[in-house]
Amino acid sequence: MSGTEEIVTAAILVIGDEILSGRTKDKNIGYIADHCTQIGIQVREVRVVADLEQEIVDAVNALRARYTYVFTTGGIGPTHDDITADCIAKAFGVGIDHHPYVKQLLLESFARRGVEATAARLRMARIPDTAELVENRLSVAPGFQLGNVIVMAGIPNVMHAMLDAVTPRLRTGRKMLSVTIELLRPEGEIAEVFGEVQAEYPDVPMGSYPFNRDARVFGTQLVLRSTDPDQLAAAEARLRARLAEKGIAT
Amino acid sequence: MSGTEEIVTAAILVIGDEILSGRTKDKNIGYIADHCTQIGIQVREVRVVADLEQEIVDAVNALRARYTYVFTTGGIGPTHDDITADCIAKAFGVGIDHHPYVKQLLLESFARRGVEATAARLRMARIPDTAELVENRLSVAPGFQLGNVIVMAGIPNVMHAMLDAVTPRLRTGRKMLSVTIELLRPEGEIAEVFGEVQAEYPDVPMGSYPFNRDARVFGTQLVLRSTDPDQLAAAEARLRARLAEKGIAT
Repeated sequence: MSGTEEIVTAAILVIGDEILSGRTKDKNIGYIADHCTQIGIQVREVRVVADLEQEIVDAVNALRARYTYVFTTGGIGPTHDDITADCIAKAFGVGIDHHPYVKQLLLESFARRGVEATAARLRMARIPDTAELVENRLSVAPGFQLGNVIVMAGIPNVMHAMLDAVTPRLRTGRKMLSVTIELLRPEGEIAEVFGEVQAEYPDVPMGSYPFNRDARVFGTQLVLRSTDPDQLAAAEARLRARLAEKGIAT
Repeated sequence: MSGTEEIVTAAILVIGDEILSGRTKDKNIGYIADHCTQIGIQVREVRVVADLEQEIVDAVNALRARYTYVFTTGGIGPTHDDITADCIAKAFGVGIDHHPYVKQLLLESFARRGVEATAARLRMARIPDTAELVENRLSVAPGFQLGNVIVMAGIPNVMHAMLDAVTPRLRTGRKMLSVTIELLRPEGEIAEVFGEVQAEYPDVPMGSYPFNRDARVFGTQLVLRSTDPDQLAAAEARLRARLAEKGIAT
């Protein structure tokens, strides 16, 4: 892909039994999605899979073939259920071993903290061959990028640090811009005119999101999205005019 | 499948551009996962896809072939971007039309509220042929079940009402039980012994989840899971004993 590519896409792969059981409520999907939208990467799909080798390998291979980037979270700690690095190596068909620089970082950190350098702790130095490291300024053990797959921790603040570290090296495309029109009317009242304006502007995807702020007030947010600011402004103006014709103030 | 089946599985399919853009933070995955765990259904996979017909159809067909149930959220309102019902019909190769009973429910509700019965509003009566309805005690327009796919609203409190309504008709299996041992020690300290006990009890999946409650205290939750209470108790006792041998109080 070239540097002039205008649409850059991504998938998010969340790895962990604890999300599927409901024990832990995921906070990483929304964070990564927001971040990608802000920098000009379009998240097109999300999957959550269990801590099972075949599930992870299959999901990584399906997603990395379809999207510019795949961001994974979870499964890179020191315990036996942390199998993400091995699964990524398997998905790409490359070897995996202790990375000399990461091992040195960990050994220095263990020495500073006065903890023993056990085999389990040193598991966190296992990095697939040819992967680039993704710095972890919070808790030393890094993430990594192999091909178009970026592997990050599951703990939110550690993931945030890794996402910050990898962002400067990501290719980004045109930013998806959006306009939100909030109406204190139910969806049903605007659905017809909204559909008509969508048909006039097929390249500006328009979504309708009902909400209730208390038990009695039902409202609707209309969201228009485009990478082209002129198209977006034209569609917005047309929608506001058509709503006004129907007596609906925006 | 027979009524004596002991493992009942599910996937969750979240449908909506607004989740992928980060604009809306999903709260349905964790809620459905908790509910399924409590009633004896094991969620094995989650996907989030855009409001695009082929994406939805492909995901529904991939997931319904693999799991006992698929729970979908989102895309069943009155606006043009609500295409879930049509996609489910297409995935199953069945027709879709206004459901007479749902149409009647909606018309009665419109009459009570003094709103016009527009074509857009009546879109919510479109239900795939042979689907069973899933009652919506909050806002009238129902969800539905077609085969093993249960289609619910994306608004959390409406989804909760639909999940409550469909639950009595779901087949459930053995409940996944869990025990959590919380340690004020980092993962690295317990990783070795934890891995050894996991190897002794391969049928009791054990996960390790680090946490930080403030900037300085790092701890770890060890979670043991099994549908067999005796196995779970034996594995827990063994783990506590081995941790105690290492001088780690539980």
